Amino acid sequence: MDSVLKAWGRLTNRSPVLAFVDWCLRGIGQVMFQDNPLTGAIFLAAIAWGSIAAGAPAVLIGGVVAVVAATLAALWLRVDGAALRSGLFGYNAVLVGLALPTFLPAGRLLWLYVLLGAVVSVVATRATAEAGKPFAVAALTFPFVLVTWLMLLASHGFSAVSAPLAVEPAVLPIAESNPLDAIAFLGAVLKSISQVFLKASFVAAILFVIGLAVNSVAAALFAVAGAIVAVAFAHLFGAESELVTGGLFGFSPVLTAVALGTVFYRPSGRVALYALVGTLFTVVAQAATNAALAPIGIPSLTAPFVLTTWLFLLPRQSFETGKG
Amino acid sequence: MDSVLKAWGRLTNRSPVLAFVDWCLRGIGQVMFQDNPLTGAIFLAAIAWGSIAAGAPAVLIGGVVAVVAATLAALWLRVDGAALRSGLFGYNAVLVGLALPTFLPAGRLLWLYVLLGAVVSVVATRATAEAGKPFAVAALTFPFVLVTWLMLLASHGFSAVSAPLAVEPAVLPIAESNPLDAIAFLGAVLKSISQVFLKASFVAAILFVIGLAVNSVAAALFAVAGAIVAVAFAHLFGAESELVTGGLFGFSPVLTAVALGTVFYRPSGRVALYALVGTLFTVVAQAATNAALAPIGIPSLTAPFVLTTWLFLLPRQSFETGKG
Amino acid sequence: MDSVLKAWGRLTNRSPVLAFVDWCLRGIGQVMFQDNPLTGAIFLAAIAWGSIAAGAPAVLIGGVVAVVAATLAALWLRVDGAALRSGLFGYNAVLVGLALPTFLPAGRLLWLYVLLGAVVSVVATRATAEAGKPFAVAALTFPFVLVTWLMLLASHGFSAVSAPLAVEPAVLPIAESNPLDAIAFLGAVLKSISQVFLKASFVAAILFVIGLAVNSVAAALFAVAGAIVAVAFAHLFGAESELVTGGLFGFSPVLTAVALGTVFYRPSGRVALYALVGTLFTVVAQAATNAALAPIGIPSLTAPFVLTTWLFLLPRQSFETGKG
Repeated sequence: MDSVLKAWGRLTNRSPVLAFVDWCLRGIGQVMFQDNPLTGAIFLAAIAWGSIAAGAPAVLIGGVVAVVAATLAALWLRVDGAALRSGLFGYNAVLVGLALPTFLPAGRLLWLYVLLGAVVSVVATRATAEAGKPFAVAALTFPFVLVTWLMLLASHGFSAVSAPLAVEPAVLPIAESNPLDAIAFLGAVLKSISQVFLKASFVAAILFVIGLAVNSVAAALFAVAGAIVAVAFAHLFGAESELVTGGLFGFSPVLTAVALGTVFYRPSGRVALYALVGTLFTVVAQAATNAALAPIGIPSLTAPFVLTTWLFLLPRQSFETGKG
Repeated sequence: MDSVLKAWGRLTNRSPVLAFVDWCLRGIGQVMFQDNPLTGAIFLAAIAWGSIAAGAPAVLIGGVVAVVAATLAALWLRVDGAALRSGLFGYNAVLVGLALPTFLPAGRLLWLYVLLGAVVSVVATRATAEAGKPFAVAALTFPFVLVTWLMLLASHGFSAVSAPLAVEPAVLPIAESNPLDAIAFLGAVLKSISQVFLKASFVAAILFVIGLAVNSVAAALFAVAGAIVAVAFAHLFGAESELVTGGLFGFSPVLTAVALGTVFYRPSGRVALYALVGTLFTVVAQAATNAALAPIGIPSLTAPFVLTTWLFLLPRQSFETGKG
Repeated sequence: MDSVLKAWGRLTNRSPVLAFVDWCLRGIGQVMFQDNPLTGAIFLAAIAWGSIAAGAPAVLIGGVVAVVAATLAALWLRVDGAALRSGLFGYNAVLVGLALPTFLPAGRLLWLYVLLGAVVSVVATRATAEAGKPFAVAALTFPFVLVTWLMLLASHGFSAVSAPLAVEPAVLPIAESNPLDAIAFLGAVLKSISQVFLKASFVAAILFVIGLAVNSVAAALFAVAGAIVAVAFAHLFGAESELVTGGLFGFSPVLTAVALGTVFYRPSGRVALYALVGTLFTVVAQAATNAALAPIGIPSLTAPFVLTTWLFLLPRQSFETGKG
């Protein structure tokens, strides 16, 4: 693995085009915090599989177009070079590019919409980083959530990009919870991982776990553990079974588990317990945002992850030093 | 009074268990900004009376369980000792523990829910304190509002803790305002004070005023004055009489009056007038949050107090120096 | 023009009353970022024309009462003198004073409501300025949006100021887009400018452009260009024609174009392109807030401008230096 990455590093040093590809791949990897082009490439394969298997190639195209457009826009905006080379201006754009064609009907203007969203995601990434500085918190996927929420909400008012039979804004119905057998449980866990990239696919899920593991075994373990904890907790509290088995209660908790357990805190038993509480509360936040957003007809995206992780990251300094 | 507190102080110095009780009682007192275990004990008596008289002992139990759990969690999280000993990690938890059993049906999983809420309220208290640092504003009851809103919203999606006949999310109906005689007015004022702890009880209200007075006569006066001003203003503008007489337009203004008039600014005529404007605007904010939250079926809690008091506290430095 | 301003300056130096008038006029000019009493006077004439032509003199009176009350309140609160003399404590109040009588029925208590709103707008302006300091962003019209949203929402609960036949809170209907001829396009552009002051009037629009031009030709040009871009983009994406021709898709983008293109960044080709992206995204934000606010029955006001401009201003330092 290391030798593959070294050979790739030599290639990117010689070719600006390959360097650009490298930044884009790292951008895809950064959706799950991995600054590694191989992880990004495996994630891209998972996205491709998930999109094509679901008969929605526009989703794959949207993701690729968006990360390329965002990286170009970041160059034009003369962003910080190190951040750009680590893919930090790409991961929000990838998600915008996957989300818009997932929720909106295909069409010529959709691509203009994706391009605008990708460019604005770069501005929003810098704005969020700037706003987070006094609090020493990372932007996470807030720029993706903000831009995509606005563009999906706006689609209600733009007939050129609005779905003719879009999901009706409505008050959330009472949850219907059914028993969950071992197979359904495993499916729910895997789909929780693939839903980070808005996919409900077992094959994609396995590719995502492999992609994580090639860069960080700890991240892969926390992703799987986060998914198991989230599915069990959601089911215990009687969450709608269709949402649980579709992975829709688990993708934000997966991100919280990886972020709190392996990225922002030095791993320890105490940190693992802290990450567990954060992961459980992300499930609560998921159910909460589902209910809050139902009347305006937009999905939660990764807002439950962003909200909970910010909450658990803000006290970082005092958590680590035991002061404050 | 002082000798009672001194004797209690000697006891808590000798016994870690009594010290822990002291922190919890101060936590209850801090709901209305009073760092005094006697105030906390009187408040606890008021909560007990209100809960048992209303046939809802689960509310009392919830409050006690939550403050104990939060204080233990704060110890585990190694928070700042001085803040812990002043009850600053308990008051949000008490409110979470009172609110969840008030709005959700009893049941085994409710207690797990209360425990999770209490622990997360500690994380949220630290996070809010950290986020407020650059602006020199206190956390107030924001952690309580945030955690409880999320958990109540989430209950819509969790059949194990959702009320079978929960209040339907709905557009707010037009207010119906009826004449208010002196007795009804007095009742509205008293209930405005007891509703700070989610109770509609005259006896509890009188206990709360006594509890305030043993630590700060000014706080007791501003609480009563805030309630009078709020009830009068809400009635003048034709607010729904049932809400006004139930104290539901007055509890946030009571907190604003105490906070602006006696806690965060040095008392003066100018400060009293400033606190008056803040108290009036809290009534507006109460009506506003009622309307904004109606479609998603959650109560305003003390959000109107938090919002208005932050607005009136942010300019503190310039207000006091006359610069800026 | 300059000699007129100089003569006026001599008069205001001698008379405290005229000085006070000067601060109020500058407050009106600052709605579109112009610190110039002549601009303010022309804007006031435009407001007067628009209000009286529409048979709504209460709107004009509301605006004048609010700016006077806010300036007096700012004096009492001992705000920073330079900011006061530049009209920075007046522009939010003017807008509050125009908005409340626009959306609420006339009546004695409405005037008390306007006075409260004007005074609180001063507190909110200081609070927003204080909150924005760590991020080096200006308050923009956020205080107006916050205070007016709360007061309009609250009116649902106050029968003394609520409209008997207020617009029903509802889910937004699907947009209906019709062809737009040149005359309709021009009308949409002009009304987009006058809607900054909540007016749909050609004459007022022309006066607003003149008022801008006497202080800054660049501002006038960016206002017109912003309106053109916004109307074209909204129409291209199939926005509801009635809203587009009424100027309701263009007023926030007009403010974004002026703010990003002429006020906060040093003009350049790169800045113009950046302002263009910001202006386009403000149209998206307008459609988004329309949809998000429909269920609670309040208008977007200038929230799309505030949100987008903050997003594009936060990275200012790194945008200008090319670092970060």
